[in-house]
Amino acid sequence: MSRRTDQLHLGAFLANSGHHVAAWRHPEAQADASQDFEHFKRIAQLAERGKLDALFIADVVALWGHHLDALSRTARAEHFEPLTLLSALAAVTERIGLIATATTTYNEPYHIARKFASLDHISKGRAGWNLVTSVVADEAWNFGRDQHVDHPDRYRRAEEFHDVVKGLWDSWDDDAFLRDKASGRYFDPGKLHVLDHQGEHFSVRGPLNVARPPQGHPVLVQAGASADGRRLAARVAEVIFVAPQDVESGQAFYRELKEQAAGFGRGADEIKILPGITPFVGRTREEARERFEELQALVDPLVGLRLLADTLGEDIDLSGHDLDGPLPDTPPGQRGSRRDQTIALARRENLSIRQLYLRLAGANPAIGTAEDIADLFEHWFQSYACDGFNVFFPVFPGTLESFVEQVVPELQRRGLFRREYSGRTLREHLGLKRPANRFSQEQTGP
Amino acid sequence: MSRRTDQLHLGAFLANSGHHVAAWRHPEAQADASQDFEHFKRIAQLAERGKLDALFIADVVALWGHHLDALSRTARAEHFEPLTLLSALAAVTERIGLIATATTTYNEPYHIARKFASLDHISKGRAGWNLVTSVVADEAWNFGRDQHVDHPDRYRRAEEFHDVVKGLWDSWDDDAFLRDKASGRYFDPGKLHVLDHQGEHFSVRGPLNVARPPQGHPVLVQAGASADGRRLAARVAEVIFVAPQDVESGQAFYRELKEQAAGFGRGADEIKILPGITPFVGRTREEARERFEELQALVDPLVGLRLLADTLGEDIDLSGHDLDGPLPDTPPGQRGSRRDQTIALARRENLSIRQLYLRLAGANPAIGTAEDIADLFEHWFQSYACDGFNVFFPVFPGTLESFVEQVVPELQRRGLFRREYSGRTLREHLGLKRPANRFSQEQTGP
Ligand SMILES: Cc1cc2nc3c(=O)[nH]c(=O)nc-3n(C[C@H](O)[C@H](O)[C@H](O)COP(=O)(O)O)c2cc1C
Ligand SMILES: Cc1cc2nc3c(=O)[nH]c(=O)nc-3n(C[C@H](O)[C@H](O)[C@H](O)COP(=O)(O)O)c2cc1C
Repeated sequence: MSRRTDQLHLGAFLANSGHHVAAWRHPEAQADASQDFEHFKRIAQLAERGKLDALFIADVVALWGHHLDALSRTARAEHFEPLTLLSALAAVTERIGLIATATTTYNEPYHIARKFASLDHISKGRAGWNLVTSVVADEAWNFGRDQHVDHPDRYRRAEEFHDVVKGLWDSWDDDAFLRDKASGRYFDPGKLHVLDHQGEHFSVRGPLNVARPPQGHPVLVQAGASADGRRLAARVAEVIFVAPQDVESGQAFYRELKEQAAGFGRGADEIKILPGITPFVGRTREEARERFEELQALVDPLVGLRLLADTLGEDIDLSGHDLDGPLPDTPPGQRGSRRDQTIALARRENLSIRQLYLRLAGANPAIGTAEDIADLFEHWFQSYACDGFNVFFPVFPGTLESFVEQVVPELQRRGLFRREYSGRTLREHLGLKRPANRFSQEQTGP
Repeated sequence: MSRRTDQLHLGAFLANSGHHVAAWRHPEAQADASQDFEHFKRIAQLAERGKLDALFIADVVALWGHHLDALSRTARAEHFEPLTLLSALAAVTERIGLIATATTTYNEPYHIARKFASLDHISKGRAGWNLVTSVVADEAWNFGRDQHVDHPDRYRRAEEFHDVVKGLWDSWDDDAFLRDKASGRYFDPGKLHVLDHQGEHFSVRGPLNVARPPQGHPVLVQAGASADGRRLAARVAEVIFVAPQDVESGQAFYRELKEQAAGFGRGADEIKILPGITPFVGRTREEARERFEELQALVDPLVGLRLLADTLGEDIDLSGHDLDGPLPDTPPGQRGSRRDQTIALARRENLSIRQLYLRLAGANPAIGTAEDIADLFEHWFQSYACDGFNVFFPVFPGTLESFVEQVVPELQRRGLFRREYSGRTLREHLGLKRPANRFSQEQTGP
């Protein structure tokens, strides 16, 4: 294939002290980051200095984790709520995109449409919505249900939820507001549209009491991995987060997804696919490796064993075993399952229990010099395995700093990444078209 | 009664171009304020320069107004969503309180608890929640209902909603987070509490995945006027917004409410009662009066007639009548109703149709010099008719500017208002105690 002329897109994944499970214990980490807005402000401004496309925040509407002893050794039990945090960050940044996660399973479309429209106005066109269907079943208990909504239903609801939200965003034409002091006419009533949606899951009249967002629609992000998830992504996502194993599977996903999108009448450039990556950068490879090992050494065995149990299942009790000995005999899971893959890995590489949970904690790191990381990015990008990366920073602010100071300039030298923001909106950063208003379109015709 | 030794509390009501219905048409008003965060930032910083206790934003989760022709001549059809806007303002202010309205009728307690807790952390203890039960029936249509939830049900739901939210805010003890890098313990599992609420309207397990708010609980604000509304206020409100007619009715409400609160075991100083007031300040009384008249002259007759119809009812068609002639024969409404009062006013003062709707548009203004306004405030305050005011500024930024530059210094000279913030949280500004954690209390015991 020919050399690509477009550029990489880079998102920064926000997390309290950093993405690594032991980040908060690192000597340079701010342990109470979760409650300190100034911490997030510094990170956001640093990422903007690096000209990154967007900040991204995951979300779960429950305390996630039943094993309190292990959970209490991580910094994951509490964090800012995404829409309030990103709104606050909008006020102290100028250009960087702001992508918040919100679930369609335990929300109402009118609230979600309104909050993201408002964030888009506050930020002057920098909002994105990561539409999820809720991975964590416990969320159900906080919203009056005994059980999680089941998977097919979650996606049916998500499809309709999405359509309602987009319809509400089109409540007003872009030029509905005249604000003519002389005549006294503030808006043109002919440019206000009532959605009047009646569907299987929702009945929502509208209109929204927020003007059409500066981006038309905030950018739609999706990360579902199931067949239903991919179908939704192909139909509506503009950015897709993925977690592929290697460049070949990345290429396969990339090709399939863009083909599937074509089936919905969408062009390949209307969807940006961003795999997750966790860089450990050093001036030398040794330094990068040391940084990695330094963090790994801080993983509490209880946390590590919990990561193993989450992957292998609860039937394996490793508490009595020597952590530096081998994994005891364990029946594999379904062929190709994470359990099966993890047990096979342990056997193949002859890993101890500790080595195995550290593999899970380390989660596909990219370890090397800025050149190494740039090589990797370039290889994936030029192989059409991605359109950029969603970057997980192991520890804040250090690993983001070295990324911005070392990797970004290297990517810029290679022409793979912007030197300055050319646009003001997230859509412009991503090279995505501003969608027309569905109601205005009807009026104009061919 | 003896002279009060406490001080006034002042809130600023945020609205797009200003609170007056014709504000946006004023020559000094920014007509597109509704979509300009910078406008709100200037206002917030100006109010903070005046040492005001808090900013306040009302909210309706629907487009409010069916008569498009009249609505389209006001700036009320769209505005920022309160929680996103106040979060953004938190990032660009230091001390001023941030009170957002959220309805208990069309929300879920887990979301509300979480967003206000998050705002309280982001702002380091400056969040307040104006709990409403939704005055606008149309909201129902945006949340899958044909009809508004009826009044008694709204309040039953509100009571339970409130209790769940407070329970969730107590999910963590204040000292639950150890963050001990050496031992690897991030929080103390014994200091995490599962609410497990099962009630008539809600079943919510918890815990919240946000730490206990800096204020313990964000400040609870309420403005219900019905018997149910007052009962809820007496039980739980820490700030009460009211719209009384005169100092005598203000005193009566003040006394009754604080007595009712005593029945719930609450002290008089645990509740601050703030009537709304709309000041027009001038260097002279004539200048103040001119400012008022200038705005009144900008009220579009269609908007004025709509205000009348909203008050008198839809059965009266004034469209064919001379606006400068008298109100045609109109049967009065129920004794004491707004219709009855308004018709009586027109007859008593022999008002024309135009004069009558301008009375509604002008809504109890306080017109005069800074001294006059300070006299009025002092009189209400020393008469125990209020603990301060919720100030509606007719046009931004001008009327806020003159308030901050003229009225505030006059109040300060009289010892009625702070010269500097002495605390950092909204609770501290208001002189309200930080609530104990319900779960920690149980543990300590007598
Ligand atoms: C980078 C990334 C971030 C994600 N963030 C969230 C999240 O914040 N909340 C959530 O419930 N699910 C999140 N997910 C999960 C997915 O959106 C999706 O719900 C999950 O993969 C299950 O999808 P499936 O049912 O289609 O397989 C994330 C996935 C990825 C790859
Ligand atoms: C200053 C003030 C602000 C209010 N703001 C709102 C609001 O933003 N949204 C709302 O639905 N009701 C609002 N209300 C209405 C009340 O909270 C309450 O719902 C209404 O008075 C009906 O209450 P009642 O049913 O107890 O009489 C406000 C009232 C006052 C006095």
